[in-house]
Amino acid sequence: MDEIPVATRRYVLAARPDTLTGPIGDNVLRYEESAPLTLPKPGEVVVRVQRISVDPATRGWMNDTPSCITPAPLGEVIRAIGAGTVILSRHPDFTEGDRVVGMLGWQDSAVVAGNTLRKVPYGVPINTSLHVLGIPGQTAFIGMHYIASAWPGDTVVVTAAAGAVGSAAVQLAVLRGARVIGVAGGAYKCDWVRALGADECIDHKKEDVEEAASRLCPDGIHIIFDNVGGPMLDVLLPRLAVNARVVLCGAISCYEDTRGSAPLHNWKYLLLNRAEARGFSYTDYADRFSEIEAALLVLYQAGALKYLETVGQGLTSAPEALKLLFTGGNVGKLLVSID
Amino acid sequence: MDEIPVATRRYVLAARPDTLTGPIGDNVLRYEESAPLTLPKPGEVVVRVQRISVDPATRGWMNDTPSCITPAPLGEVIRAIGAGTVILSRHPDFTEGDRVVGMLGWQDSAVVAGNTLRKVPYGVPINTSLHVLGIPGQTAFIGMHYIASAWPGDTVVVTAAAGAVGSAAVQLAVLRGARVIGVAGGAYKCDWVRALGADECIDHKKEDVEEAASRLCPDGIHIIFDNVGGPMLDVLLPRLAVNARVVLCGAISCYEDTRGSAPLHNWKYLLLNRAEARGFSYTDYADRFSEIEAALLVLYQAGALKYLETVGQGLTSAPEALKLLFTGGNVGKLLVSID
Repeated sequence: MDEIPVATRRYVLAARPDTLTGPIGDNVLRYEESAPLTLPKPGEVVVRVQRISVDPATRGWMNDTPSCITPAPLGEVIRAIGAGTVILSRHPDFTEGDRVVGMLGWQDSAVVAGNTLRKVPYGVPINTSLHVLGIPGQTAFIGMHYIASAWPGDTVVVTAAAGAVGSAAVQLAVLRGARVIGVAGGAYKCDWVRALGADECIDHKKEDVEEAASRLCPDGIHIIFDNVGGPMLDVLLPRLAVNARVVLCGAISCYEDTRGSAPLHNWKYLLLNRAEARGFSYTDYADRFSEIEAALLVLYQAGALKYLETVGQGLTSAPEALKLLFTGGNVGKLLVSID
Repeated sequence: MDEIPVATRRYVLAARPDTLTGPIGDNVLRYEESAPLTLPKPGEVVVRVQRISVDPATRGWMNDTPSCITPAPLGEVIRAIGAGTVILSRHPDFTEGDRVVGMLGWQDSAVVAGNTLRKVPYGVPINTSLHVLGIPGQTAFIGMHYIASAWPGDTVVVTAAAGAVGSAAVQLAVLRGARVIGVAGGAYKCDWVRALGADECIDHKKEDVEEAASRLCPDGIHIIFDNVGGPMLDVLLPRLAVNARVVLCGAISCYEDTRGSAPLHNWKYLLLNRAEARGFSYTDYADRFSEIEAALLVLYQAGALKYLETVGQGLTSAPEALKLLFTGGNVGKLLVSID
């Protein structure tokens, strides 16, 4: 049995960043060596945090702007999704030793409401519970199976194809028998996307995406699985096939102010090609999470779901990890391990 | 039996208009008192034209710009949908006396391929075959029943609600039990939209549509039936309810260069509200036309499908009728009668 901590190391939000996006100033984060932990109230559990997911969301929540969830309050722990182990439970559904994923924050130990946590199923490595077998993988699964429903012979274009959601989406589309074209930035990422089974990958740092999509999709695009929005989506729309579907993947939309702020000029192609654009959020599929988790685990265990990850070591590596987000210096999912 | 004409009065396209939209110059139309009619080839029929539909399409086809169908050629009859009676048939499916709708043009008599015509069902007054029981009504039917599928309790917003498609869409939405908000320009049109059964009508010439939609749809909009696109659609998107549907009605999109050329700034609300936008074209539903015609006729005969029309008298009233399109001087569907 772990010792129950009475204090935690943590980073708190000391000030709002000066800008809505991009790197943050030195004054934004404040490190606290020993912040007291409150006793868990009924319904709460104490979690030893083991992994922190470093996402655009983390950055978005630092702003004081409207979002799907309330901005993180000043003086509170930096908001972040994490994975860890329950070390004390006052919630009937959790017992000591349960592995959980939830809004744990940048800290060693967290006291959180049990009903905000989801158990990590047996057999799921803890790192993957934050990417390919976690929310990103589940999001890709919902988008590709429930929304896109790609069929053999369909041409599927996945944007941000090397990202956590994108790389799962590419593999799920390949498993459905589709012809898959990824869009990613840089030769390394494109090699990775092809290694995932994509037939082609457009390097948007080097190629004209519009021209490349036109050349690679002579019969049009049947499905756009979009993780990016804005100008990238815009240049793909004129290539839509008749009755095409555009899946607007909502995984990061709540968090990123930049997403969706650029206008769509080519929306008329939805009309001209009788196409459909549909947004979705994984939160709407809560009653199917168990089924989705099981399906992803089977695929993972069969070796059909690959992933890349970059893992920072120790809580104090979190600020550096966050910086990597803005330099594109990481490959695959960015995590911090605080075991 | 009608006498078979050997010549026809007609208007031909003498020159392209100087601009892509708006009123046309005097040099665009050339009136011909007696243009020879070619003998019908096998598969063709001769039609005595009785009604011409005056649409934005008529104007759009005068331009030499890409569209769903090829631009009208110079020196040929002004392209227009019309209704008339077969007076000579060399097509096995048509006999003398059949009433038909098709691309008849601005002329007294037309020689056209039978396979481009559709028969006007028994019981359908000829004027209505060009609006409420014709393509506009069928388009509204497809959009409201097959695409929007409004349910009782849904809040449905119809743009261009006083137009030929819009006014049918309003009535079909009311019949489905929805709460219907029309958007139209001017008090007269709004009164008409309310007379069709709409619960409310936003006068976009007088009211701030965004503010009015916000006030009238406190629980959000479940369905936008959009006939307009551009800025009008844009201001409605932020009011979408979760899981809303946007029906992009394709009736006029092929013809109007203006439609869809303005960017959509608020498309991100599709994503945030997990909404769907879907374009459709009535041409994709050819195998259901008989069923749609029958359903509309029943509703019409029951008095559940009202319409307004403005009818110009005589072929030579067509140029004046076209001008009305740009002044908004007409109410309801604009026709020219050449009986």
